Amino acid sequence: MSSVLLLDSRGKKHLVALDGDMVRVVGVGTFRAEKIRGAVGHRLSVGARTFLILDPSPRDLRETMDRGPQVLAPKDLASVLFEADVHPGARVVEGGAGSGSLAVAVARAVGPTGRVYSYELREEALAIAQLNLERAGVASHVELRNADLCGIRERDVDAVLIDIPNPWAAVPAAWEALRPGGHLATFSPNMEQVKETVAAIRRKLFIDVRTLELIEREMEVRDVGVRPSFAALGHTGYLTFARKVLDTF
Amino acid sequence: MSSVLLLDSRGKKHLVALDGDMVRVVGVGTFRAEKIRGAVGHRLSVGARTFLILDPSPRDLRETMDRGPQVLAPKDLASVLFEADVHPGARVVEGGAGSGSLAVAVARAVGPTGRVYSYELREEALAIAQLNLERAGVASHVELRNADLCGIRERDVDAVLIDIPNPWAAVPAAWEALRPGGHLATFSPNMEQVKETVAAIRRKLFIDVRTLELIEREMEVRDVGVRPSFAALGHTGYLTFARKVLDTF
Amino acid sequence: MSSVLLLDSRGKKHLVALDGDMVRVVGVGTFRAEKIRGAVGHRLSVGARTFLILDPSPRDLRETMDRGPQVLAPKDLASVLFEADVHPGARVVEGGAGSGSLAVAVARAVGPTGRVYSYELREEALAIAQLNLERAGVASHVELRNADLCGIRERDVDAVLIDIPNPWAAVPAAWEALRPGGHLATFSPNMEQVKETVAAIRRKLFIDVRTLELIEREMEVRDVGVRPSFAALGHTGYLTFARKVLDTF
Amino acid sequence: MSSVLLLDSRGKKHLVALDGDMVRVVGVGTFRAEKIRGAVGHRLSVGARTFLILDPSPRDLRETMDRGPQVLAPKDLASVLFEADVHPGARVVEGGAGSGSLAVAVARAVGPTGRVYSYELREEALAIAQLNLERAGVASHVELRNADLCGIRERDVDAVLIDIPNPWAAVPAAWEALRPGGHLATFSPNMEQVKETVAAIRRKLFIDVRTLELIEREMEVRDVGVRPSFAALGHTGYLTFARKVLDTF
Repeated sequence: MSSVLLLDSRGKKHLVALDGDMVRVVGVGTFRAEKIRGAVGHRLSVGARTFLILDPSPRDLRETMDRGPQVLAPKDLASVLFEADVHPGARVVEGGAGSGSLAVAVARAVGPTGRVYSYELREEALAIAQLNLERAGVASHVELRNADLCGIRERDVDAVLIDIPNPWAAVPAAWEALRPGGHLATFSPNMEQVKETVAAIRRKLFIDVRTLELIEREMEVRDVGVRPSFAALGHTGYLTFARKVLDTF
Repeated sequence: MSSVLLLDSRGKKHLVALDGDMVRVVGVGTFRAEKIRGAVGHRLSVGARTFLILDPSPRDLRETMDRGPQVLAPKDLASVLFEADVHPGARVVEGGAGSGSLAVAVARAVGPTGRVYSYELREEALAIAQLNLERAGVASHVELRNADLCGIRERDVDAVLIDIPNPWAAVPAAWEALRPGGHLATFSPNMEQVKETVAAIRRKLFIDVRTLELIEREMEVRDVGVRPSFAALGHTGYLTFARKVLDTF
Repeated sequence: MSSVLLLDSRGKKHLVALDGDMVRVVGVGTFRAEKIRGAVGHRLSVGARTFLILDPSPRDLRETMDRGPQVLAPKDLASVLFEADVHPGARVVEGGAGSGSLAVAVARAVGPTGRVYSYELREEALAIAQLNLERAGVASHVELRNADLCGIRERDVDAVLIDIPNPWAAVPAAWEALRPGGHLATFSPNMEQVKETVAAIRRKLFIDVRTLELIEREMEVRDVGVRPSFAALGHTGYLTFARKVLDTF
Repeated sequence: MSSVLLLDSRGKKHLVALDGDMVRVVGVGTFRAEKIRGAVGHRLSVGARTFLILDPSPRDLRETMDRGPQVLAPKDLASVLFEADVHPGARVVEGGAGSGSLAVAVARAVGPTGRVYSYELREEALAIAQLNLERAGVASHVELRNADLCGIRERDVDAVLIDIPNPWAAVPAAWEALRPGGHLATFSPNMEQVKETVAAIRRKLFIDVRTLELIEREMEVRDVGVRPSFAALGHTGYLTFARKVLDTF
């Protein structure tokens, strides 16, 4: 465990790296890493404050990131990982890396025997992504590339995951990069993007082309009544999946 | 790759184990394993028939299983794996194993360094599960247990995934089995089951208790128009998640 | 009451006109209208068969129509009537009339003091629509027009309801036909149709332009459990609403 | 037209009664009713301010009411009116009246030849309801009753619409009040309420018992892209419908 989550009594989460002997939590203080490491699941007092110590889940990592507004929702992240068969040991290309949110989730899913190649054009985003990868403890198996996803250099990768405004532009490069049977996944908020992306996919040898939307409803489960939440349930985007082949029928 | 998918021109999928020199496909014929292994992504003629050869994705594994009607949908499988932090190397308890559908997906996600303990009371289901695990090539890191999920023997596991009609009955055993910070996930079609399960969870030291439903809409993306599918989009069930702790605020 | 519903024990519905002394039910027999008229809510034996007698609801009228596959769903019908302010006494233009499904619902909502003008290009559809209007007992206040909705002749109508594949083409004619403050409603399955229709609306003086989709979930409510139905919940279409004005800000 | 809507350039709506020669708009000023009456669809300057004049739609009436938080959403209002066959001339019982939101919509749908009986226990709510009915111009055909919906006095009504926290308690009174074939509609946010209501309905002679939920998605339709709105789409409640009969099979 290279990082730990400190949850305070108001529900606020702090992600803390455990890379040295001493740990510093911004706005809280400094204490010995060893003290935290053995305290997972327990309440711990640090100075005048009290925290519940947890190992960070993928959802925790996503929530504690320095990030911009455009980050894949957990429901979409989960579906991309499953449908694109992101498994232990897999080699995966993704981009635009943005703040590294998708890269962190993919890196967790491929594990230390896998490898993630993250493309991002904006240098300032790359710096944030690097920081987020380190804090999540997955930097060792992610390679950040300050390059265009339309010029993927890797070959024979298991999956290419596209989260840029014009996914169609990266589809030919994705086909070149994928191994036979490899998986393509793209994410777009608008139906015009979906349409153009699917058209680009159909111009290459891909099968199993599917587009779907996931709607998540949080449920309120209380003694006085069970019902879907009155709170927000907005659109996030459409997911398109496909698999590369070398022949078709 | 221990198994391979043969896709015929009508979309029918055949999962074939590659464990010997020769491969036999029911209703098709027998041929050399080596011929298939090198053909992923290609069209291959076998006697009078033609197949597209693919490595099986989690979705393919799920679709080609011998199974009963009650199998988690891909959207729910994906969410369980993500929200319960099923990662490479994790030790996970699940049950009722049924035909092994969830066990296969979990085994893929934990990889060869992880371990899955699958509980199932019905012996005839266990036999089917064993077959499905072998065909999916993950039998080596799954232990099937002909036992009640309310009597989980393992300790310090990373996650317990409950898919039985009375999940609440297994919640205390799940708490005992989980490591501090470990994840609980339950699946139920009915609101009453959710209510009773959440009540059982609240009687133990769990935090981050959340219940959600995922609605999947397939999209039709054609030149003549983009729209959600007119076809079925039914309810599958509610997912409840929680994390074990040893203290709370 | 000019027609009556006969419901058999298997749930099949027969709509029967009560316009003479004698009533004939296809496949059942002939009997006196008076006998039925007094029997609403009761079981009635006709020869060897037994029926429950009901006055037809809008849903019954819709279900017992001779019709093609493309008929507005009750959820969409209900929303169109409400959002376009189809009230007693209103004058409403609608088309394509098709089998008359929308015309029947509108005629019921405007009542005998209102008036419906139904446009339909295909003569064979008009004949079916006429039959359906008569059986629903609303033919007296609906005028069927074998004409193009793009050439609406009426002026100062309260609402124009468009259900044709190219709603945008009828938007200018709808604006001409509407009274100031009058309501436009259009229905389309595809996003491209919606986009082109909204663009046409924005080229005229309309305000309150809104597009929405309604998703209906049937609930299973039984002693053993409450949950959304596992059965189909498909897409039907998008509804776009707007109001004509003579000035804007 | 007994009231008129003034829409300002920021989208704010003012509902104004047109019952005398002079009209007073709070915070704006006083002017001659005749001037407004002829201006529907036009922009009108009143002192330093400018308004667009419209006749109020059901949606406008709902939005401009003095009201509490618990008012039926337009999608649910529309479905209740359609499924319960609230037509011109119908006699309808509804309650709890609350601020009169449902009563106004029903009164519009039954028109001047119909009649609405609104039950409400809280006197202060009744006063607000009376005001809202007058401003909507429908007070003449609504009778407010300061009484319990479980003691409905009317008989042979066409529909009973129940929006109270314990709808099951009013189901027997609703059955007594309804004519044979008459429609019952109830609204509840929680599944426990639905379950108890459906149980109460099944203890009386009702047929066509159905429960449904409507989910409304607003669509963003712009040149740069079409997609469902990112904004809120929360749960409102479940609708249950049934019809009274005197016999069953």
